[in-house]
Amino acid sequence: MNFDIIRAGRVKFHVEDLERSKTFYDALGFIETERDDCHIYLRGLEEHNHHSICLKKSNEPVAEVISYKVADDRHLDELASFFENKGQLIKWKEAGEEKALGRTLRTTDNSGLTIEFYAEMEQAEIMLQRYDLYKGANVQRIDHFNCMVPDVESAYKFYIDELGFRCSEYTAAADEKIWAAWLHRKPSVHDVAFMNGIGPRLHHVGFWLSDPMSIINCCDVLAALNYGPNIERGPGRHGLSNAFFLYLRDPDGHRIELYNGDYLTSDPDFKPKRWDLDDPKRQTFWGHEAPDSWFEEATQFLDVNGRKTETSEPLLEKKKPTFVI
Amino acid sequence: MNFDIIRAGRVKFHVEDLERSKTFYDALGFIETERDDCHIYLRGLEEHNHHSICLKKSNEPVAEVISYKVADDRHLDELASFFENKGQLIKWKEAGEEKALGRTLRTTDNSGLTIEFYAEMEQAEIMLQRYDLYKGANVQRIDHFNCMVPDVESAYKFYIDELGFRCSEYTAAADEKIWAAWLHRKPSVHDVAFMNGIGPRLHHVGFWLSDPMSIINCCDVLAALNYGPNIERGPGRHGLSNAFFLYLRDPDGHRIELYNGDYLTSDPDFKPKRWDLDDPKRQTFWGHEAPDSWFEEATQFLDVNGRKTETSEPLLEKKKPTFVI
Amino acid sequence: MNFDIIRAGRVKFHVEDLERSKTFYDALGFIETERDDCHIYLRGLEEHNHHSICLKKSNEPVAEVISYKVADDRHLDELASFFENKGQLIKWKEAGEEKALGRTLRTTDNSGLTIEFYAEMEQAEIMLQRYDLYKGANVQRIDHFNCMVPDVESAYKFYIDELGFRCSEYTAAADEKIWAAWLHRKPSVHDVAFMNGIGPRLHHVGFWLSDPMSIINCCDVLAALNYGPNIERGPGRHGLSNAFFLYLRDPDGHRIELYNGDYLTSDPDFKPKRWDLDDPKRQTFWGHEAPDSWFEEATQFLDVNGRKTETSEPLLEKKKPTFVI
Amino acid sequence: MNFDIIRAGRVKFHVEDLERSKTFYDALGFIETERDDCHIYLRGLEEHNHHSICLKKSNEPVAEVISYKVADDRHLDELASFFENKGQLIKWKEAGEEKALGRTLRTTDNSGLTIEFYAEMEQAEIMLQRYDLYKGANVQRIDHFNCMVPDVESAYKFYIDELGFRCSEYTAAADEKIWAAWLHRKPSVHDVAFMNGIGPRLHHVGFWLSDPMSIINCCDVLAALNYGPNIERGPGRHGLSNAFFLYLRDPDGHRIELYNGDYLTSDPDFKPKRWDLDDPKRQTFWGHEAPDSWFEEATQFLDVNGRKTETSEPLLEKKKPTFVI
Repeated sequence: MNFDIIRAGRVKFHVEDLERSKTFYDALGFIETERDDCHIYLRGLEEHNHHSICLKKSNEPVAEVISYKVADDRHLDELASFFENKGQLIKWKEAGEEKALGRTLRTTDNSGLTIEFYAEMEQAEIMLQRYDLYKGANVQRIDHFNCMVPDVESAYKFYIDELGFRCSEYTAAADEKIWAAWLHRKPSVHDVAFMNGIGPRLHHVGFWLSDPMSIINCCDVLAALNYGPNIERGPGRHGLSNAFFLYLRDPDGHRIELYNGDYLTSDPDFKPKRWDLDDPKRQTFWGHEAPDSWFEEATQFLDVNGRKTETSEPLLEKKKPTFVI
Repeated sequence: MNFDIIRAGRVKFHVEDLERSKTFYDALGFIETERDDCHIYLRGLEEHNHHSICLKKSNEPVAEVISYKVADDRHLDELASFFENKGQLIKWKEAGEEKALGRTLRTTDNSGLTIEFYAEMEQAEIMLQRYDLYKGANVQRIDHFNCMVPDVESAYKFYIDELGFRCSEYTAAADEKIWAAWLHRKPSVHDVAFMNGIGPRLHHVGFWLSDPMSIINCCDVLAALNYGPNIERGPGRHGLSNAFFLYLRDPDGHRIELYNGDYLTSDPDFKPKRWDLDDPKRQTFWGHEAPDSWFEEATQFLDVNGRKTETSEPLLEKKKPTFVI
Repeated sequence: MNFDIIRAGRVKFHVEDLERSKTFYDALGFIETERDDCHIYLRGLEEHNHHSICLKKSNEPVAEVISYKVADDRHLDELASFFENKGQLIKWKEAGEEKALGRTLRTTDNSGLTIEFYAEMEQAEIMLQRYDLYKGANVQRIDHFNCMVPDVESAYKFYIDELGFRCSEYTAAADEKIWAAWLHRKPSVHDVAFMNGIGPRLHHVGFWLSDPMSIINCCDVLAALNYGPNIERGPGRHGLSNAFFLYLRDPDGHRIELYNGDYLTSDPDFKPKRWDLDDPKRQTFWGHEAPDSWFEEATQFLDVNGRKTETSEPLLEKKKPTFVI
Repeated sequence: MNFDIIRAGRVKFHVEDLERSKTFYDALGFIETERDDCHIYLRGLEEHNHHSICLKKSNEPVAEVISYKVADDRHLDELASFFENKGQLIKWKEAGEEKALGRTLRTTDNSGLTIEFYAEMEQAEIMLQRYDLYKGANVQRIDHFNCMVPDVESAYKFYIDELGFRCSEYTAAADEKIWAAWLHRKPSVHDVAFMNGIGPRLHHVGFWLSDPMSIINCCDVLAALNYGPNIERGPGRHGLSNAFFLYLRDPDGHRIELYNGDYLTSDPDFKPKRWDLDDPKRQTFWGHEAPDSWFEEATQFLDVNGRKTETSEPLLEKKKPTFVI
């Protein structure tokens, strides 16, 4: 059973000030597809769909939902049955209720993350060769969601056994308990990762860049625009996933990862890579420490009914240098 | 019907002098997995399988075969039936007959290209984070085959309708005849491309790099090692596929493309991009001309029985600036 | 005697359409300092002086003058005496006659090139850390003039023996006749180069970039803006000077070199590097050929009185692969 | 009076284990020119002189001396008189006493730093185009010394007023007291910098790289070779000097800066750039904090007689975020 989920599709962030957010995402090189009084829709340079970020004006900076694209509309019905059988609340939206999207199925996964599935999104012009519009990090496309959950092992099993994701890399302790896992549908390192921590929360959304210099250039541009304080971590290289990374906090505190350097995971005989919890190269290949904020802060979700999702403490011990990449 | 072909897997080149070839491929950054008196097996830095290039000592520099990896061994039987029904000769090799491979099915496609399918190849250590071994172009992995065939439209239909490939980009004339097509199984621009020309011949094998600077560095290293004359074309940017490219001729004249910059083609609603035959940005985005050798020279194949495959003239008119990217 | 010439300072180009030129130089990343109805003044991102390019509206695309900066105003008088003693016409302009410049001395060197000296130019804001304004090639600063002259050996001796330049690299034939020479005052490879050819003409003005990726990015931006045909040669690596280069033709045909990769030549014991006329790595380290236009076309000068300078054939045989880098 | 000092020339480090050091500097891309039982001599890829680092086997990891190159041997006598008149001890070494050097003058500056002057050093092959030998950071050449001294203002005046250095950038507090200063002879940002701190000590020696990607590649190579813990700070961008930087500690704790991105300071009318002590972009343009070790640890000197130089507390208050770039 895999429901033909294609890939991580979009995130919907609530933000307090649309213009303030727009200025920030502009600096990273996002293209604005469309806007109305309450929303701005952004996409990366190579994206052929309407948006990968929807910013919604709100009083509280939460993640409304993270959305996955499926291959065909009929998979939505299959997913609806599946989640209902699991006892999860589901909520349908008709085509167009979510701007530019076909009908969507919103529900909750076994960790309490608010997720959404859709098969159709309006087409948009691919800007890949509009190099004259490249700016900041030249963001190419959405890559993955990274979520903090209290029980990674359970999330891991749910996505692999029930939703047909595959594991590329994971972190385990001596007792082989899984502390963090990178799971994919498209043949990259991940569409979603789970890390042990207070959750369910959205730790960050990762966007793929075409080369490492885009990250260096982005830091310079951000600093020139006085966004230096928004650079939270990096640039650096993750041991896990091999990604050359930069972590940013948008004006509402939502975390964005700019990301380059992972690899193809298309083969059925690809073996997930195990990292020991205490391997110093796992978190940062070069040995840098991450700041406390990176370990502690994350974005809360709204549930299917629009109420803020409650969080709980992680099952495994929370150790700064250990429980995350 | 798609037989679950995963991706372009490996090429087997005949070369006159193994050491001479080894020195060249070393300069590009390939890793030698294994060798014997008659063969050298090479892989890219991120490859987890035994090899993507097999060099075989021979008196004549031909391509013995280009090979595709399938998801599961049972797909080989389905493919055998399929090709037999098409009236093609098939040839099985038992596991190990081709070094490091499980059993393989060798046959001929409708253009006369000698192709091979396999499900299993021995594992090899991923060298992605052995940055101390990076050299030349830091070749990461095999990406695609590019073949010259006399009838692109026919090849296009065969791979799409019969083998389940999808088209990412293509070149058409005013009459909508297809002059060249880029087809994929993995969600990149291509696993195989067909160009109108004398064929069946192997124009080049493309290898994926992690960033554009790897190509600049590679040119410098090749020149320092007196391989300047082996640089045939580039560096440049293809309009088609958006690839930043470099074309090299190995010591036997086999053509290698070093390649970076394409995009994700995972979505069912991705629309193939049409390029007009006369669009000057199609071939080279920056406007550079390719040398005549690039249009005229290619590697001939051995057929399933090991005899040199005969070639024929293309159906469509052969025009230098037009019939290829 | 060296008159304390500091460095290549600025070029004054006549162009037919100021707006057309502005659009082009904008794409390369130049900063406009100032303009009036007849002129546009441009500078690179790290330049602290008013301009390094002055574009003047005119009916004919010529080079009015190439200008060198000297350390102190009194050196201008010494230079005036020197050139008068050589029998050259001199022409003073009072401070401000040339916008933003102190008084200038205009004259003719022994090859017939129209040259100018100045000690003072108005200050302008350094934009080096305004990364938000970086565009195209992120042009940093003027680097050098390259001139075609009929008698390189004579130009070489004049600049070294009389004006105190030093030679970093040169090309000689078997008879040790100098075919081309790279001469500097600032400790880089050159402030001016002379190549054997029809002259006196200005072959190109070189601008320094901070890194090779700026050239790749510039090609992409130019192509996206339909300036592909303005890319004349490159990107490539010169053997001579080690420069990673790109040659562009502006809308009037003036040639601009974007340039990165040379080295420090500060030491008195640095030995000029001799290149053999027939060394294939001299012109292009990677082995690429330059197009005919690059060998044949160059910008003519106005003389001190504003009349177009006549040119003559070179003393040494003009051979495409030989007489230039 | 400027004694025609050309540039920072070389450092002589005492190290405990020559092989251990050699392995480290190899990883950075240094070329070994020569060695004997007690010394290893290293140079960068573009250097035409014998060495810019001399490693000497010793029981204690100190800096024996930092050396400046002067234009001509006769300047050494002028410098000797000058320092004797200042009451400083001087010590001559005959040509060859220091391997590959002509006669040298060793003495002490007004901060107690042990400095040396030489006019001649043996030539060595320039490896700039031996791209096949490029490794790690592809170190190009020595750039500068950075020293901690108790009285920056006094050092600043000595080097500018007495030795003819020029200031490119400096840090001052509200009372205009100079906390740190960047001084040059060659037209770059610096040959030597002084920072307020316990001294005299050598904070680091800076080496110039040709592009920012060399720093990223170097981090990856170092990590792959388990030198991750030797990466002390960076990569990042200094506001001051605009340098893209990486700070490393060699196996004896000597600090090396890899460095790219500064600018030309050739012009007499270039105005030194003042940074306010409290400007957050001064230290790190992107806003990263430096680790405590970077502020506190530095290499002590031997004096002219080979005894360890005593240090004293700085005149100005030592404040972590303030007293250094």
